[in-house]
Amino acid sequence: MGRRIQVVENIMGANERLAAGNRQMLDAAGVVGLNLMASPGAGKTSLIEHTIRRLGQQVRLAVVDGDIATSIDADRAAAAGAQAIQINTGGECHLDAVMLQAALGQLDLNDLDLLIVENVGNLICPANFALGTHKSVLIASIPEGDDKPYKYPGMYRGVDALVINKIDLLPYIAFDMDYFRRGVAALNPGLATFPLSCRTGEGVEDWLDWVLAQLKHKVRLSPGG
Amino acid sequence: MGRRIQVVENIMGANERLAAGNRQMLDAAGVVGLNLMASPGAGKTSLIEHTIRRLGQQVRLAVVDGDIATSIDADRAAAAGAQAIQINTGGECHLDAVMLQAALGQLDLNDLDLLIVENVGNLICPANFALGTHKSVLIASIPEGDDKPYKYPGMYRGVDALVINKIDLLPYIAFDMDYFRRGVAALNPGLATFPLSCRTGEGVEDWLDWVLAQLKHKVRLSPGG
Repeated sequence: MGRRIQVVENIMGANERLAAGNRQMLDAAGVVGLNLMASPGAGKTSLIEHTIRRLGQQVRLAVVDGDIATSIDADRAAAAGAQAIQINTGGECHLDAVMLQAALGQLDLNDLDLLIVENVGNLICPANFALGTHKSVLIASIPEGDDKPYKYPGMYRGVDALVINKIDLLPYIAFDMDYFRRGVAALNPGLATFPLSCRTGEGVEDWLDWVLAQLKHKVRLSPGG
Repeated sequence: MGRRIQVVENIMGANERLAAGNRQMLDAAGVVGLNLMASPGAGKTSLIEHTIRRLGQQVRLAVVDGDIATSIDADRAAAAGAQAIQINTGGECHLDAVMLQAALGQLDLNDLDLLIVENVGNLICPANFALGTHKSVLIASIPEGDDKPYKYPGMYRGVDALVINKIDLLPYIAFDMDYFRRGVAALNPGLATFPLSCRTGEGVEDWLDWVLAQLKHKVRLSPGG
């Protein structure tokens, strides 16, 4: 097992170095990068569609979509009006810095303000691989249940913002928001949190304001992502 | 990278051998093993609770719960009346045959008819690791969206039964059941499929009948899991 651990450490170290390189590329071009993570079906693509449609006139943005198969998400982002690049991970449960590096090479970063990376639908693996983006965003979803912060602490601990999607379903689901928020607060005190519904549009405005704030303050962006 | 590939192949080969050993242990004791897989929050634990409550009088069953942290699910299974063993994977995104072997060692298999393994909430990793169980079951969930068979083909291709949970939410969600079913049929023709709601109980009877059928026909169980 010693050799396996060494190999894993080498892979992680290489990823960190490549992530730092991606960050430098983004910073040099003045592009803010967001890494969106979530379970399958929590609403990453729907939130990206809202973001493109609402901010696309004032912000030059592109989307990098990670999936193990298909280009469904990138097609949706492109249909909403953004330049979109699909990464198929070929079975891997997360994006890594090498994959993002390849995608960055296909974009003219100097023509961009904002890069949204849609990670693979997964509450575990993506948390362990830095990409070089500036901020990490987790999208939780009401029908997933209120125990997810407790069961997936690594993901909740590491993010800079939390979207709670599908609040329109609250009347139909047993979801204890206090229990959920206590779990989040224990792992990530003061986390910026945006309850919203991509279906009805309720609450999306606050999310868009947060995105715009990241762009305005990008010179003061903290390490992350 | 050659060394990494060799290490991965060694790990997978070792897992296959241990899975075969687990299968032999189950078969020797006349226990049917089910491997339940799903996204986070699709309803694995809720379906297990129904199964325990409804079959617990006629079937001697135990539950092995896999999670990266906490014993929330095992506690729920125990509260519903089953012997329950929690495996914390310590960050790993799936159970493997070694972990199940350790759990089997804590059970008196000769006192059991049915072992339900609740895998880690994840639509990718668990599909790649055989445990030695007889049948694999995927629980899909209406709010996850109708595109999941297309985006997670590895998971949908490898299972022996598909539960479609949360059908009570269909009136509130845009979910094209025909599109979903076409995706499933392309990957896994003839797959036994059980639309149901753990919340209302609708459709759960058909699932229970399928579980009982596995027990009745266990001498004819095909390889899987």
